[in-house]
Parts: sequence; C-alpha cells; structure tokens
Amino acid sequence: MNILITGGTGFIGTHLIKALSNQYKIHILVPQNLDFTVPEYVSVFEFSENIRELHQYINENQIEGIIHLATLYVAQHQAEQIKDIILSNVYLGTAILESIKNTQVKWFINTGTYWQNFKSDNKVYCPANLYAASKQAFIDMAAFYTETSSLRFVTLKLSDTFGKGDTRRKLLTIFKEAADTKEPLLMSKGEQYLDILYIEDIISGFTHLINLLEQDKELLNEYVLVAQQRYNLKEIAGIFEKVSGKKLQIVWGGRPYREREIMCPWQKGTPLPGWKAKLSLEDGIKKFLTP
Amino acid sequence: MNILITGGTGFIGTHLIKALSNQYKIHILVPQNLDFTVPEYVSVFEFSENIRELHQYINENQIEGIIHLATLYVAQHQAEQIKDIILSNVYLGTAILESIKNTQVKWFINTGTYWQNFKSDNKVYCPANLYAASKQAFIDMAAFYTETSSLRFVTLKLSDTFGKGDTRRKLLTIFKEAADTKEPLLMSKGEQYLDILYIEDIISGFTHLINLLEQDKELLNEYVLVAQQRYNLKEIAGIFEKVSGKKLQIVWGGRPYREREIMCPWQKGTPLPGWKAKLSLEDGIKKFLTP
Repeated sequence: MNILITGGTGFIGTHLIKALSNQYKIHILVPQNLDFTVPEYVSVFEFSENIRELHQYINENQIEGIIHLATLYVAQHQAEQIKDIILSNVYLGTAILESIKNTQVKWFINTGTYWQNFKSDNKVYCPANLYAASKQAFIDMAAFYTETSSLRFVTLKLSDTFGKGDTRRKLLTIFKEAADTKEPLLMSKGEQYLDILYIEDIISGFTHLINLLEQDKELLNEYVLVAQQRYNLKEIAGIFEKVSGKKLQIVWGGRPYREREIMCPWQKGTPLPGWKAKLSLEDGIKKFLTP
Repeated sequence: MNILITGGTGFIGTHLIKALSNQYKIHILVPQNLDFTVPEYVSVFEFSENIRELHQYINENQIEGIIHLATLYVAQHQAEQIKDIILSNVYLGTAILESIKNTQVKWFINTGTYWQNFKSDNKVYCPANLYAASKQAFIDMAAFYTETSSLRFVTLKLSDTFGKGDTRRKLLTIFKEAADTKEPLLMSKGEQYLDILYIEDIISGFTHLINLLEQDKELLNEYVLVAQQRYNLKEIAGIFEKVSGKKLQIVWGGRPYREREIMCPWQKGTPLPGWKAKLSLEDGIKKFLTP
C-alpha cells in the first residue's frame, strides 16, 4: 500500500517514515525548494500548489492513505505570521483534500493538538492560541470533503512530545543541555501539568490508527494520545534528575507563566481505542538520554 | 460613532452604507487597486495586508464597530479558487481581528450563510459547499480573539437576498430579464424552498443588531434573518408573474438540480430577537420592479 505523508522531514515525520517503510511504500509531499534529506526508498513529490498535478501524482502512484503532519507551529504569533499560519495550517490540507477527490485514497489522518481545547474539563473547542484555531479551521474545511465523499478523516490530537532528533526547543531538550552546561535555568513556577509522550509511543499511535482504518473499524472523528501519567513541570524536572543522575540549576519562578499557559491539559478527549502508551516518562527519558 | 465596513462596495454594503450614514461615520476597508465608487462622506482605507497600518487607522479614527461583509462567494468551486477562497474568507477577517486587538473596537458583526447548515433540521454545522466551510473556518479563527478579549462577535447568517443594484446573477434578477426578453428559461424542477429577503429587510436586520450591541444586550454568537414566509421556486415564479403582470417562459425540469441543492433552508437557526421582516415577498418584488 502507498501512503503519502506531509511534514515528512520534521521530527515526527522522520520517525514515522522509518517505522512505516517496512510495511508500506512511503511518499512525502514537500514544498518546492525545500532543503532536506530523506532515505532513498522514500518517493518525493514537490508541491508547486498545482492541485491537478498532485491529483495526478496520487492517482498514478495509487496512494491509499494520507498522513498530514505538516504544520506551522507558533505558540504566540505576531501579526506578520498570520497569513503563513493560515496558508500552512488551513490551505495546504484543503488543497490535498481537493486533490484526492475521485481517487483511490480511502483515509486521511490529520494531526491536531490538545491546544484546541484550552478548557480542560470541557469537551468543546476553545483555542489556546491562534495556531490551535487554525487547526480547528482546517477540520471545518475538511468537513466539506467528508460530507461529499466516502473518505475517512480522523484527527489524532497530540499533546507534548519528545525524543531523539528533535530540533525544536522543547522542555526535555532544554533540560538535557542545561544538565550538561550546568547553566542556571529560569523557569515559571512549574505547577503546570504536562501530558508528554516519547516519540516511540507517538509513532505506535499512528501505526495503530492506520491498522484500525485498514480494518475498516468504525471510528470517531478524533482521538487523543494520552501519556501513562501526567506530571507537573517540577515533577518532570525531578524525574529527569533521577534518571540522568545530574542536577538541574532551575530557578523556579524565575520567569512568568506564558500567556494562556495550560495548567492542566485537556481531559475530555477520547483515547485511541486499543492503544496505550508503552513507556513511562522515566523509560522515555532513559531512551532519550542513551547516546 | 465610527464604523468600519468591509465589502462596502458590494450589493449589501452599498445599501448598508446609505442606511447607516445618517447616524454613524462610515469607513470602508477595500483591497488595494480596487476600482470603485463610494459617496464622498465615506472614508476609505486601502488594506495593503499591513496589519499594523490597519491597527493604526482603527485607533486614529476611533472605530468602535466592524461590519464584515466582504466575501468571495463561489457556489461550486474549482481547485484553482481554493487559495483565494481561504484568503478572502478566512485570512482577511482574521487580519482585521488581529488589527483591533487593544483598540476601542467593541463589536464585530460577521456575515454567515445558511449554507453552513446543509442539514435543515439539525443545529450543527454541515457545509453545503466549500464557501460555507470557509465561513465556518473563519468563525473558528475568531474564537481565539473573543476568548482573549472582551470583543463582542456576532454572526448574522443570511439566506437568499434580492434588491435593486444587485449585479449578481440571482433568481429575481434572472426572472426580471426573462420577463422582458420573453426568452425561455431552463430551470430545475423548482421544488426547492427558498428563504429570500428583500434588501431593506436585510439592512434593518443589520441596524437592529447594531442597536442591540450598542445597548449592551446579552446576545448569542449567531442569529439568522428569516423571511416572513418560505416559498418553493415554482411558487416564487408564480408570485413574480402576478406582481409583474408578465408571463415567464420557464421550462421546469429543463436542467438538473445543482449538486447539493438545498431543498429546504436551515430551520434551526435562532432568529434575531426583536426583529421581523417587514416586507412580504410580493411587496419586495413590487419594490424591486418599481423603476
């Protein structure tokens, strides 16, 4: 089976390609003039914004599933970024959905975020930031395509992720650096809870969902991937210190919470059925720190 | 009070400016290099996509309310139109919402469509076409701004409209031409119901909503404007013939229904409180035909 992945050159994408390549023929969609490297067994389609060209590629290569990981992530946007946020997070996905009309594509896995649900104990949409709003906007564009075809469209909502090869400035990467340099680290008070998953569990979530779709299981429109346990930032620092055997020089309260900081991640998402995180946070950090 | 209107050069916009100008100072936002005429008492801001420039204009001109009418309407889209649909119907409104952050703007009236609710007897979103989906996507983007400010944001959902000065190829305009030319008119079977309002009633809906907002009334996020009575296409043709005294040469069933034709307009919208359509369809057509 042929699968087309967007965001295939990113953190999750590169891990996912490795995991899926044994079983599937992987194609990735990249923007034109992107500087990137992928394994030679991956086929590359450079998207020039010509939707008919993409349609033809999808037909000719018998693509049956799409995994849409590409995203422009901005925690706190500037006015100048809005157009790019909308083009990346709303337009690109819509263009792909248009391109797969009347093709053999059976399913589309979309990547969402817990930040679409800022109110932890409420089921309904409430964006933490404009990035999350753009994710929701794409889902509403997608509704037109699912209403007018038999396409199966499922959004997998992710919270925090970490792992090897992550070039984003995320928590565990910052801890790892700070433990080595012994530099003091200014952090907020650290009472916010995180739902954080090691990359292997994220990948197993995607592959599990592919299997459910391939088995034609009845599914909801969206699921969340949840960690075995949630910890607050202070607890995570403690676990990191224990696993690494290194002391972090953290100044708790040395900086304010972010605007609209999520103190408690969304609690009302439906977990992906039949899937569970295999790694505890300790185990994930162990793997993360192993050279 | 200063009000900024987008789409001020369109059918509804030109009528609305006339109606509001007695009471308010009207500003319109237009794209750069647009060829247009507006009365000299209207102030014009040419939007170059520089959000900070717009922010400054809004501050300096003490804008207190926004009426967002600008839209790219496409009943059945082509792949090549998707980017423009998203830029016009999602990005422009988002840019304006960004520009009014930390200004004196108190309210934002957004224009929606019955087509966001293809399933007539269901309250929830279900787009009839991609145009309607883009309208919903903008509402998702707007949620971020209403969540993070005290801005009041209300969507007024419109169904069909008609009136003088309408350059769109809409039903009553087509009837009027066909009655004069006596050319045969190929129509569908004509059993679809329409909720159609004369422009004066549309305008009174907007002015009524402005008054409710200015009186700080508690309001829902969206309302519909509903006609006194719904008629199917055949009945509307009959009313037109009666009022005009002219016979239409309609070939009923001479063309198929549109894909996803709305046979019965949305029935679950909440009517704007305290407002009612003043004109029957007969009265609207009479006014429409009066030179």
